[in-house]
Amino acid sequence: MSTSGIRPRRPGRVARLRVQEHLTDGTRRHEDEVATEEPLEVRLAWPGRPAERVAVTMRTPGHDFELAAGLLHAEGVLVPGHVDTIAYCTDETLAPEEELNVVTVHLDSPPPRSPMARRGTLTAASSACGVCGAESVRDVLDLAVCGHDAPGGDAVAVSPAVVRRLPEALRASQGLFDRTGGVHAAGLFAVDGATVVVREDVGRHNAVDKVVGHRLLAGVDPRTHPDAVLCVSGRLGFEVVQKAVAARIPVVVAVGAPTSLAVRLAREAGQTLVGFTRDERFVAYAGAHRLV
Amino acid sequence: MSTSGIRPRRPGRVARLRVQEHLTDGTRRHEDEVATEEPLEVRLAWPGRPAERVAVTMRTPGHDFELAAGLLHAEGVLVPGHVDTIAYCTDETLAPEEELNVVTVHLDSPPPRSPMARRGTLTAASSACGVCGAESVRDVLDLAVCGHDAPGGDAVAVSPAVVRRLPEALRASQGLFDRTGGVHAAGLFAVDGATVVVREDVGRHNAVDKVVGHRLLAGVDPRTHPDAVLCVSGRLGFEVVQKAVAARIPVVVAVGAPTSLAVRLAREAGQTLVGFTRDERFVAYAGAHRLV
Repeated sequence: MSTSGIRPRRPGRVARLRVQEHLTDGTRRHEDEVATEEPLEVRLAWPGRPAERVAVTMRTPGHDFELAAGLLHAEGVLVPGHVDTIAYCTDETLAPEEELNVVTVHLDSPPPRSPMARRGTLTAASSACGVCGAESVRDVLDLAVCGHDAPGGDAVAVSPAVVRRLPEALRASQGLFDRTGGVHAAGLFAVDGATVVVREDVGRHNAVDKVVGHRLLAGVDPRTHPDAVLCVSGRLGFEVVQKAVAARIPVVVAVGAPTSLAVRLAREAGQTLVGFTRDERFVAYAGAHRLV
Repeated sequence: MSTSGIRPRRPGRVARLRVQEHLTDGTRRHEDEVATEEPLEVRLAWPGRPAERVAVTMRTPGHDFELAAGLLHAEGVLVPGHVDTIAYCTDETLAPEEELNVVTVHLDSPPPRSPMARRGTLTAASSACGVCGAESVRDVLDLAVCGHDAPGGDAVAVSPAVVRRLPEALRASQGLFDRTGGVHAAGLFAVDGATVVVREDVGRHNAVDKVVGHRLLAGVDPRTHPDAVLCVSGRLGFEVVQKAVAARIPVVVAVGAPTSLAVRLAREAGQTLVGFTRDERFVAYAGAHRLV
């Protein structure tokens, strides 16, 4: 596959602006940096079907092709090895600054699951895309494991000492957070703690989509070569776990707390779920047998 | 209006489960509490139109009617004073546990903005509903101020000393966070810092919808009596600011960082936006003239 497209003026990941800082003894004006947030529209096409919008997500620009690939993979629409091209849109009706906010994914064959299957259009509508396409309460719960095998396999084991070090390893790669304090991070790690890839985004789900998409675009098929560990900077909700299950990642580690539905899904999918990870401790909410 | 409905077995805001805690010197098993996350489906009806699903959001159960009202208000679909009833669904096709995850809002007249106007259905699909119904990149940016007047008016002024105390005031009401460490909070405050209402939720946008919805259900019309200050526990993205603009709240204070689009929207809407709020400092990104 190729990932091409016109890239006239890429929006930066950081925006500079004038601010007024209030201290107890007065105010001062200076320049500050904030994380860029822009909408990304994902369009999907395959032979015989013209490109149609399937999702809109609020994201930090950068690694947009990875984001599009990861998002569609989590939805069961993109099958590894069946992406033809991913490109920024050159639709003449778009203003120049919009072109970099619209990405079209061309598949080489119809997807196994229609993006229209679960509602009129999949039109995502949010930075939290684990529930994209869910039409009802029942859909949300069915969505989770539907169409995906159980993650990774029980052969994967991660030592507790490695788990405790992951937040620091993730933190070391959070350059955008250092500058803005305003982004989440997600990282894939090997069993020995080696960093595979880290991505940052204003949307925590986008960061996960980007790391999964990075692997897909590198030609790695998670069905045969799942990554061992996903570590996320914040808390752990249903949507992040759903994306990790779709990518068949056996171990998910969070710095923050999990929700009830995140734990339920991990347990049903046979995934290991760890929260409140610190240098000296962590809590295993599911699949503790892999932590040896 | 009335807010009634069958409430057989309300799902708790907290779930208890067995976990395994790993410490540097060994493991121990014990019970732990996590924040409940469940999907909420919002249905909308008005005279002559049967109830139809317009949104699904992942939320912490509790104050569901407030959440539904606030969500529809931010979308411009619900006009203050025109809600007839809000009730849990008694659809016979729903399983008992699903009934408490489906809420129907009956308006007393057709909404000024059709929930179908911006796409096939509004079907929210996420806990981040500021972009609900947005069909394209342009829609997202147009959505923000469309149909809403500028917030509050310049007469509102908040002293920097009050601003600095808000995170602590919010924190004092975060009972669910104390137990689970896994929820966001949003609170409305008066100009003098007095707490109006605080709500917690696994979705930060839900917490905002709940506080706005609380005021709507109490009969307060934000067009004539906007609340002065919204304080949120985390970071500040486009979607939270969009909801605050819709509720005509003039001052938004966050403990964390804002995004570029949050600042842009606040500046365009004439809203005061404050981030990184601590005891000793904060940063004003927009509308600093109200901080005197």
